[in-house]
Amino acid sequence: MRLLRIHTPDGLRDAVLNDDGRVQPLTDGSPDGAALDLAEVRLAAPLDPGKIVCVGLNYADHAAEGGQQAPAEPILFLKAPDTVVGAYDDIVIPRGSEKTDWEVELGVVIGRTAAYLNSTSEALGHVAGYVLVNDVSERHFQLERGGQWDKGKNSATFCPLGPWILTADEVPDPQAIKLGLDVNGEPLQDSSTAEMIFGVAHLVHYISQFMTLYPGDVISTGTPAGVGAGQKPPRYLRAGDVLRTWADGLGEQRNQLVAAP
Amino acid sequence: MRLLRIHTPDGLRDAVLNDDGRVQPLTDGSPDGAALDLAEVRLAAPLDPGKIVCVGLNYADHAAEGGQQAPAEPILFLKAPDTVVGAYDDIVIPRGSEKTDWEVELGVVIGRTAAYLNSTSEALGHVAGYVLVNDVSERHFQLERGGQWDKGKNSATFCPLGPWILTADEVPDPQAIKLGLDVNGEPLQDSSTAEMIFGVAHLVHYISQFMTLYPGDVISTGTPAGVGAGQKPPRYLRAGDVLRTWADGLGEQRNQLVAAP
Repeated sequence: MRLLRIHTPDGLRDAVLNDDGRVQPLTDGSPDGAALDLAEVRLAAPLDPGKIVCVGLNYADHAAEGGQQAPAEPILFLKAPDTVVGAYDDIVIPRGSEKTDWEVELGVVIGRTAAYLNSTSEALGHVAGYVLVNDVSERHFQLERGGQWDKGKNSATFCPLGPWILTADEVPDPQAIKLGLDVNGEPLQDSSTAEMIFGVAHLVHYISQFMTLYPGDVISTGTPAGVGAGQKPPRYLRAGDVLRTWADGLGEQRNQLVAAP
Repeated sequence: MRLLRIHTPDGLRDAVLNDDGRVQPLTDGSPDGAALDLAEVRLAAPLDPGKIVCVGLNYADHAAEGGQQAPAEPILFLKAPDTVVGAYDDIVIPRGSEKTDWEVELGVVIGRTAAYLNSTSEALGHVAGYVLVNDVSERHFQLERGGQWDKGKNSATFCPLGPWILTADEVPDPQAIKLGLDVNGEPLQDSSTAEMIFGVAHLVHYISQFMTLYPGDVISTGTPAGVGAGQKPPRYLRAGDVLRTWADGLGEQRNQLVAAP
């Protein structure tokens, strides 16, 4: 199933995406009302995450483009859930930002509490589904303003999420998902989760040793090469730029960059 | 006012602490029912924070005890709100932890949305009140497992919060609050917010340039010297240890350390 949420005059409403690509609103989990065209609805993020645990440098080619060694174990940081926006919403370039950057990522939605998992073989049983994430980042704030990355990961609108959650039963192998990102129509990221250094099962098991993962938490599993900071010369986002962020089976995001008000 | 929340058979209930030290339950903000002795109630954290923004190395003596330079600008990291427990709740030592440590801190509760504040003079107008925080930390996870501090700051129960929020109108100067922490009756932290490198107004203004602060967010403003990692030799928490964490006007926490189940 592809689970999503739509804005309506009465607030957020749960829905599913039908096989014909139309949006079926739900009431208490059952179809209710006419199916809608995806183009007619305004998508919200498909969930309000409890916490968002992000993984750094989890693709060797992305570590290399930043001049970093591939990490010996997963690097973790957090994104506050108040940064989440819908798949077609605007991304705001923070005031004073010169280095707003993109990162397409596979998001893992936790479905069952995970604490101190004994083995990676248990891990995928704690996953409810998968969701597309853009881990928008301000590189100057992240890397040149005091040392901890969170400062460059948490500006408002820095986490486009969705369009939908693809339930785990429809994902036979989370390490075989192609994903990418275009800037103004130019493909700059194009990779596969096969290239992750630490796969989803490894990450869920690993993170559960340090913090408790609860239903509704999201793990954003890191980005492949092709971010703005990795271009020669580096290239960052400006107001008016348009991103298309995609992953097979997870749909696509389209976000316009706007200046902070 | 001193705002708190208590556990009742019907769930959490808002209350205030009266001048006589008794707990007055509220219904819709008005007194309702008999006042209770503080010893008879089980305190919850006084709020569910939206996000918790923590400040690193914000007292020169604490930076020095860790062999660090005082930072040129605030270091920021995040603690997930799911780590919050009440002022008298147990703190769980994570499995495999050898270096669970304490950090008494002044918490700042945001009352009004703050984004891109123009000056520090506006900052305190965005503060609803103050609350005692223990930024419990696992030093091996934080410092020796991949580089970003969040990994050692987010184990379950790592954020005792409360006992109450002291409203800002009763705090004429947030830089004149004594605070400290005892381990098994031995005073190991004993300082004042006067010793902060970056004061509350500076922090609120500063953070608002990088992320939006919303009502209910908490800024934890850093810890003075005297943490376990700073002892000679270092000293970490073990099951059975008892912490008393205090700040003038903000009450005290009493937490027993227990082993992870």
